[in-house]
Amino acid sequence: MIFDILTIFPEFFASPLQEGVIRRALMEGKIKVGVHNIRAFAVDRHQMTDDRPFGGGEGMVMKPEPLAACLKALGNRPAASRVILLSPKGERFNQQAAQRLAEFEQLIFICGRYEGVDERFRDKYVDEELSIGDYVLTGGELAALVALDAISRLLPGVLGCEHSAPNDSFSCGLLKHKQYTRPRVFEGTAAPEVLLSGDHAAIARHRFVESVELTLERRPDLLHDVQFTPDERKILRKSGLLGRIETLVNSQRNDSRHEG
Amino acid sequence: MIFDILTIFPEFFASPLQEGVIRRALMEGKIKVGVHNIRAFAVDRHQMTDDRPFGGGEGMVMKPEPLAACLKALGNRPAASRVILLSPKGERFNQQAAQRLAEFEQLIFICGRYEGVDERFRDKYVDEELSIGDYVLTGGELAALVALDAISRLLPGVLGCEHSAPNDSFSCGLLKHKQYTRPRVFEGTAAPEVLLSGDHAAIARHRFVESVELTLERRPDLLHDVQFTPDERKILRKSGLLGRIETLVNSQRNDSRHEG
Repeated sequence: MIFDILTIFPEFFASPLQEGVIRRALMEGKIKVGVHNIRAFAVDRHQMTDDRPFGGGEGMVMKPEPLAACLKALGNRPAASRVILLSPKGERFNQQAAQRLAEFEQLIFICGRYEGVDERFRDKYVDEELSIGDYVLTGGELAALVALDAISRLLPGVLGCEHSAPNDSFSCGLLKHKQYTRPRVFEGTAAPEVLLSGDHAAIARHRFVESVELTLERRPDLLHDVQFTPDERKILRKSGLLGRIETLVNSQRNDSRHEG
Repeated sequence: MIFDILTIFPEFFASPLQEGVIRRALMEGKIKVGVHNIRAFAVDRHQMTDDRPFGGGEGMVMKPEPLAACLKALGNRPAASRVILLSPKGERFNQQAAQRLAEFEQLIFICGRYEGVDERFRDKYVDEELSIGDYVLTGGELAALVALDAISRLLPGVLGCEHSAPNDSFSCGLLKHKQYTRPRVFEGTAAPEVLLSGDHAAIARHRFVESVELTLERRPDLLHDVQFTPDERKILRKSGLLGRIETLVNSQRNDSRHEG
């Protein structure tokens, strides 16, 4: 996978690409990252990459010509290539989007700054506009790194045995169970007995129930889309969670009926 | 605002803190950032900060003692201090969370790696667990940077005239309107005439309608919570959007009625 990043702050990316899983993926050639300075493609002698918005308002807007020139300078692109603008106005980037984008050969990330990029550049050159969350950042550079990181770890061979993507939070629609490691007793608190029992079926049941409990407590919105198997429903009934889940889904239904 | 970051990759943070708005905020003393190496507080001679999970399963879990020791080494904390674990299992970090956290004097970010941190450390020391989005990263370092960035730009004096936080996407519940700047004509496409008209009321109406259209198209979920003023409803009725919004909210209601 080739990542090309268009930015006015190329130095931003120096240290984060030199650590951990991403560093190893780069060293082993699993991913390639090109960082391209939009400012080098500014058309005037002041190297301006932004200007005041038409129609007024505070802030600056990124000019379309340097962005277009920087993109064109990447040269021929493989067929499976995608130009992605990172912006709070985009559609949501999530684990499903990461999986979908991991299938491309080349991803080109455009990092907006200030009040965003000129819409005509977006219309002509951008395949999709994505947002990594419902908050506003000082620029798209961090968002590009987040997308690069989330996508890279799904590529074949990038994660070693230290981690396995199919067991992640979100991949089965639930938050992941709690984790414990040595020592057995930390500041007076023992790790749960069942995890030390060696009874693999009991451990799997315990972790499944914990996943559902965590999701109920922190992200009940996720439960709306989870389909439980008959076996899972049996475990949930036994642990008293099935009723809570049904109440929750019903109350979500009633909430939306009463609104507006 | 003081940010303290606990990580096993302290070098990760070197370059992103040296650019743009964050660099200036640091130079002007608006924010302080301390990066602390958890590995320096490892208790064994191999400087181990992770170990295999109790109960089996792939991957490694971050040990509780080095985390606790690193946190304690920060010394006395102000009353308005908060310990935040970044993890995909957390509650959602969004613009409202950024605004709430911007009121604290000190935020301490714990960067998890691998399969997460020992739950007993979380129980005893963590005030809240936050997730920056529904995707999985190779570590909490990027999430800590995202939170630091989104919170810092809300602090008094951090954003200059280049940008204004109250006009951000999400702050009024809608995505922000499109932006255009010079040249007037870019690759054959002119910027919208109204923006060059000098008619401020018409520009405001145009931008409001565009905001609603973008939100309808990309993030219809946000419209559920927006309360329009009578004047805004009048503009929306005129532009034919009020019907679409009402249909959408009704269909969301029907969807949840039919599910399950």
